[in-house]
Amino acid sequence: MEVKSRAPGKIILTGEHAVVHGSTAVASSIDLYTYVSLHFSTPSDNEDSLKQKLQETALEFSWPITRIRAAFPESTAQLSSTPNSCSVENAKAIAALVEELNIPEAKLGLASGVSAFLWLYSSIQGFKPATVVVTSELPLGSGLGSSASFCVALAAALLAYTDSVSLDLKHQGWLSFGEKDLELVNKWAFEGEKIIHGKPSGIDNTVSAYGNIISFKSGNLTHMKSSVPLKMLITNTKVGRNTKALVAGVGERMLRHPDIMAFVFSAVDSISNELTSILKSPTPDELSVTEKEEKIEELMEVNQGMLQSMGVSHATIETVLRTTLKYKLASKLTGAGGGGCVLTLLPTLLSGTVVDKVVAELESCGFQCFIAGIGGGGVEISFGVSS
Amino acid sequence: MEVKSRAPGKIILTGEHAVVHGSTAVASSIDLYTYVSLHFSTPSDNEDSLKQKLQETALEFSWPITRIRAAFPESTAQLSSTPNSCSVENAKAIAALVEELNIPEAKLGLASGVSAFLWLYSSIQGFKPATVVVTSELPLGSGLGSSASFCVALAAALLAYTDSVSLDLKHQGWLSFGEKDLELVNKWAFEGEKIIHGKPSGIDNTVSAYGNIISFKSGNLTHMKSSVPLKMLITNTKVGRNTKALVAGVGERMLRHPDIMAFVFSAVDSISNELTSILKSPTPDELSVTEKEEKIEELMEVNQGMLQSMGVSHATIETVLRTTLKYKLASKLTGAGGGGCVLTLLPTLLSGTVVDKVVAELESCGFQCFIAGIGGGGVEISFGVSS
Repeated sequence: MEVKSRAPGKIILTGEHAVVHGSTAVASSIDLYTYVSLHFSTPSDNEDSLKQKLQETALEFSWPITRIRAAFPESTAQLSSTPNSCSVENAKAIAALVEELNIPEAKLGLASGVSAFLWLYSSIQGFKPATVVVTSELPLGSGLGSSASFCVALAAALLAYTDSVSLDLKHQGWLSFGEKDLELVNKWAFEGEKIIHGKPSGIDNTVSAYGNIISFKSGNLTHMKSSVPLKMLITNTKVGRNTKALVAGVGERMLRHPDIMAFVFSAVDSISNELTSILKSPTPDELSVTEKEEKIEELMEVNQGMLQSMGVSHATIETVLRTTLKYKLASKLTGAGGGGCVLTLLPTLLSGTVVDKVVAELESCGFQCFIAGIGGGGVEISFGVSS
Repeated sequence: MEVKSRAPGKIILTGEHAVVHGSTAVASSIDLYTYVSLHFSTPSDNEDSLKQKLQETALEFSWPITRIRAAFPESTAQLSSTPNSCSVENAKAIAALVEELNIPEAKLGLASGVSAFLWLYSSIQGFKPATVVVTSELPLGSGLGSSASFCVALAAALLAYTDSVSLDLKHQGWLSFGEKDLELVNKWAFEGEKIIHGKPSGIDNTVSAYGNIISFKSGNLTHMKSSVPLKMLITNTKVGRNTKALVAGVGERMLRHPDIMAFVFSAVDSISNELTSILKSPTPDELSVTEKEEKIEELMEVNQGMLQSMGVSHATIETVLRTTLKYKLASKLTGAGGGGCVLTLLPTLLSGTVVDKVVAELESCGFQCFIAGIGGGGVEISFGVSS
């Protein structure tokens, strides 16, 4: 029995940081995925362990099923329909299982992902021997939602053969979940995210599960579909950020200059609202795709100015901005800033030659470039993939 | 008889562009001056012409007094107490006088300054033969108020020996004007500025005449003295700007995104208000000079973000920002943007070695650097300088 799932990454189109202070933010799925392939061992495999392979890092972990069973004595696969938070006791058991792995120090950042894996696996599938292979098109820890897409893809694959969801097991190719099943996948994924991030907002896993565009304000999410097939160049500066410190810095600036920053956050709120109305309005209406793209480019430029005024830009981000500006392309940082990723809108009418040039120039600076369509579908699964 | 005058240049500390849309802006004098030295020919000089020497450009212009008299038949020195606009007829006569000079094409930008000179000279001094030498520490056409400081210094020198002002002719060293006389100098300077710029705001000449700090909003000016001895590094990118096009660009963005830009302009208004309250508050009070400087640096960074969101930055401006940021110094463009000058606050406690390094690095990019104290006095004159 084998199932494969894929869940998209996400970008913040507008409103990062300001959202903490009550402004609307807009996030979107990107068509870069984390893939999870789950293969249950059959008796003829004569295999009695749980294995996790992380293709990108060439790491492979393995636990005897007896160890898993001992660690989670109360787990039963019947619980898969009610997403459960990892208790302090479970967390301790997981920590012990992870510690035994002797993960190389340079890759210790993966430990929390392994912990989430162990919790979701044992909670949803109990103690079946299996091999789980994870591959991802998303860079880790760069604000593109790699951990959320891993949790979503994992939850989807783990739930696929359970009675908690109802899927057409004979479907050929990628298959979406129904509304209720999607909710369950998303809830489990959120439990995984909590293990990885402590107090995640839930935006990343929701975008990865549902796909499309989501605007959010003060904890309220609004799902929408985009009528504009936007394409973004995503440049990973590879500069690691301290998201907490960046968020705290904006908060301190707010305390020092409350009048000014209140207007800045209001401006960002208006940017997000204008973006969603452009994305939602049918094409073609009064505005052609090109006109919409031009408006969105201007909104990105204005939003980037706001982010600079919050003090969350970075020298590498400025380098990306300067480089893309040479080609008259609009860019803004996405996510926490202070490094991380930068978005550049690639207009429909832009020639591939120009794109190649920009990418080559950015890569020559040591950056990593991705081209992604935005606003596509969410998590999907595919059955019976031969291993 | 000889008199020398000097009038300071200006910088916009906060609020450029937004001021067009109703926000407060704050301008300040800088201790970089245009000097005008006026030497009236005596009968023994056997000289019957009016000469203007522009030291920086090594240009020298000369007109026989008979030509000046023929050009302005109705001029009398008695009119010096009532500033007069240049009529269309006068403008034609001036154009003819300037045309005769055959100014080299590369320096034709100076023609309007020569026109202003002819108008102010003939209106205030009538037809006395004299030599006027102009030297300036200010780069031309870079937004530092070079033309206004020329007009102010010229008007001051021309008025000094007239009955329209009352000055202590025996004073040694630099002498300020009384309130009423200063007003007259400023009004004449404004007439000169009108010839040079068409429709000047009057801010530049007012800052140059009165010195100190001036905040302005919807045409209302408020004079104030700064309690903080700020020092700025002014970097001239040497990129010429099209101020009209930049102002129009912001206006168009305002029309396309009225909600967003209204918040942006409100934020800038708050920045200017916060700046003036920091500059006015006595030192030492709760805030030390260093604390004030840190607040001002943050305001500059926020204002620069707003200017970027208005779309008036420029690749060279970004280069200056990036360079100064390496030394943890805050910068913003000043004036119209799109090139022009960038301000960098030099904190009191910053070592001279760091300043030298920053300047060297900026100059290696082809920029021109000035260090200026801000908020000093306005126009001054000095009598009896031997030529």
